[in-house]
Amino acid sequence: MEVTNKYVTLKTHVEGAPKESDFELKTSLLALSLDLGSGEMILNRMKRYSSSQRTGPGFEGITLGMEIEAYGVAKVVVSDNVEFQKGDVVVGVITWAEYSKIRRNKMIRKLDPLGFPFSYHVGILGYSGLTAYAGFFEICKPKRGEKVLVSAASGSVGNLVGQYAKLHGCYVVGCAGSKQKSFFLRLFLSIDRYFPDGIDIYFDNVGAEMQEAAVANMNTFGRVAVCGVIPEYIDSEKKAAPDVLDVIYKRIKIQGFLAGDHVGLFQDFVSTTSNHLHSGELCPLEDISDGLDSIPFAFTGLFRGDNIGKKIVKIAEE
Amino acid sequence: MEVTNKYVTLKTHVEGAPKESDFELKTSLLALSLDLGSGEMILNRMKRYSSSQRTGPGFEGITLGMEIEAYGVAKVVVSDNVEFQKGDVVVGVITWAEYSKIRRNKMIRKLDPLGFPFSYHVGILGYSGLTAYAGFFEICKPKRGEKVLVSAASGSVGNLVGQYAKLHGCYVVGCAGSKQKSFFLRLFLSIDRYFPDGIDIYFDNVGAEMQEAAVANMNTFGRVAVCGVIPEYIDSEKKAAPDVLDVIYKRIKIQGFLAGDHVGLFQDFVSTTSNHLHSGELCPLEDISDGLDSIPFAFTGLFRGDNIGKKIVKIAEE
Repeated sequence: MEVTNKYVTLKTHVEGAPKESDFELKTSLLALSLDLGSGEMILNRMKRYSSSQRTGPGFEGITLGMEIEAYGVAKVVVSDNVEFQKGDVVVGVITWAEYSKIRRNKMIRKLDPLGFPFSYHVGILGYSGLTAYAGFFEICKPKRGEKVLVSAASGSVGNLVGQYAKLHGCYVVGCAGSKQKSFFLRLFLSIDRYFPDGIDIYFDNVGAEMQEAAVANMNTFGRVAVCGVIPEYIDSEKKAAPDVLDVIYKRIKIQGFLAGDHVGLFQDFVSTTSNHLHSGELCPLEDISDGLDSIPFAFTGLFRGDNIGKKIVKIAEE
Repeated sequence: MEVTNKYVTLKTHVEGAPKESDFELKTSLLALSLDLGSGEMILNRMKRYSSSQRTGPGFEGITLGMEIEAYGVAKVVVSDNVEFQKGDVVVGVITWAEYSKIRRNKMIRKLDPLGFPFSYHVGILGYSGLTAYAGFFEICKPKRGEKVLVSAASGSVGNLVGQYAKLHGCYVVGCAGSKQKSFFLRLFLSIDRYFPDGIDIYFDNVGAEMQEAAVANMNTFGRVAVCGVIPEYIDSEKKAAPDVLDVIYKRIKIQGFLAGDHVGLFQDFVSTTSNHLHSGELCPLEDISDGLDSIPFAFTGLFRGDNIGKKIVKIAEE
C-alpha cells in the first residue's frame, strides 16, 4: 500500500533569519511497507515541534531537499521495530512531513498522554518544558526569594521558566518582544526599580549585550543559564562580553546547556509539572497553527517574534 | 615600648597598571602595647604576599595614605587575643609593613610550617596554591587524559595549575609572557598542532579575547575557570566575548571563583600538596625580593610580567 506524503524541505542554506521562500513543500509516494529486520517504523505525524534543532543530541544536520527533523507526536502506521506496534502513539524526533520513516535507535518513545492533550507533550510536558525545568532547577539551583530575570519571557521556554520561578517563591522579571532590548539597556540605568536587591539568576534566551547587562547587575554567586533550545532568538553576530572582573569577584557561573543532557530528570519533571497542571498552578501557553502547509510561515514567525508561548503545528487529527 | 614601623601606602588611586611612584614608604612610631580587651595583636611581618586583594573575602578596600593589606607570614609581638601568644608564627591578612596591628576576627591563623620554609606558606601552600587547587580540581573537575590550556602559566597560580594537571594525568599546554597573545591568536589557526583533540579545560588567568579563542577551540562540556587571584593580568578594558552558540551547543561552563570560597578544601589541599612536595613531584616556583623598600618595584613588576612563579617579599629574618 502506498500513501501520498507531503513534507517540508529546505531549498537553500539559510543565512540569518529564514524566510518562507527558503522552504518548499514536496509530495512523494511512500510505500507503507518496510524491509524485514530493518527496525524501521513509519509514523503518521499528529503534532510537531516548532523549531529544528541543528546540533542537539538525537538530531541530524539538514540536507537540502530532504525532510527536516523536528520534535513531534505521531501514530505508528507500520513497524518492524518490536518495541512499537501499529497504532501506538509516540513522541520524539520525527520529520516535517505527514509520514516519517524512522530508523532504529532514533529518539522516539511511546507516549502516555496522562490525560492531557497531545499538544502538551510537545510543549509544557515535552522538550520545552524539560529545557525550562532542567535549566532553571538544575543549572540555576534557585533558592526561595531569589531574584530572577528571564529574557524572551513570552517564548516557549521563557514563559515556563517564569512560571516555575514564581511557584518556587522567587521574584521574577521577564522581558520579551521589541521592548526587550530597551529594557536591558535600561537595566544599567534603572536597576533600582526592577531589581533593588540585584539579580541572582538570569535565564538567558537571547545572548548578546543583554547578557552583559544582566551580569553587570548580578549579585555575588549569580548564575546565568544560557538556553539552547531557542537559538533563533540569538543574534550570532552579536556577542556577549560580560566584564571578567564581575565574573571573578561576583563568582558568576555562565553555563550553556541542552535539555537532552538532563533526561535523567524527565520523570521528576513530568510528575511535578503534571501535578501543577492538574492543580491549575501552571498554565500552558500555546500558539497552534493548522496543517503542514503552515510550517514555513510558523517557523519563520519564530524569528519575527510572532509566537506567544509554544509554537505548534497540527498536521492531523487523532 | 615603642618601635619604628615602616610601611607602604598608596598615594593616589591607580588607573591601569600601577607605577612605583603611586606608592610611598612611610615611617611611624608604634607603641607595642594594646588596650586590654581589645582583642588586638601586633605582628612582626616576616614574609608577605605579592598582590593586594581589593575585594576578596577578608580583605578591605585601600585608603590612601593608610597601610595596605596583603597575605603574609608574621610573628606575634604583643597580643590581647587569647588564641595567640607572643612568639606565635601566624599566616593571613596582614599589611605591607614591618609591624601590623590586627583587630579581632581578622583572617589570621597559627602556622605549622610542616617542615617547609615560610615562603611556601604564602605561595604553594598558601592562597596561590589553594587557588590553583580549588580552581583546577573543584571548578574544572578534570578527568585523566583531558586536554588543559593554562594562560599566564608562569604566574603564581598558573604554574601550579600546570603541575597539578600533569600529576593528574592531563595533557597540558601553558602560555605566558609576551608571546601569550600571539599564541592565542594562533590557536584559531593551528589548533591541530597544540590540541588535535580540542581543549577540555581552560584555566583563564587573563580574560579578554584569549577566552574567546579558548572557547572556540573547546570540546563539548568544556570548562573555563576564570581565576580571581591575579586580576593584574587582566585588561579590564578588553572583554571576553565567547560565541554564545558555542557556549550552548558545547554546553560550556564559564565560572569565576575566588579561593576564599573553598577554604573547606584547605586540609585536603595542604596534605596532598605537602605529600607531592616531599616526594619531589611538585616544585615551588618562587621569585623573592628583599626588604620592605622593594615592595613597590616588586608589586608593579607583576604588571610588567617580571615575576616567574610566586612573587614574595622578605621583610625580616625569622
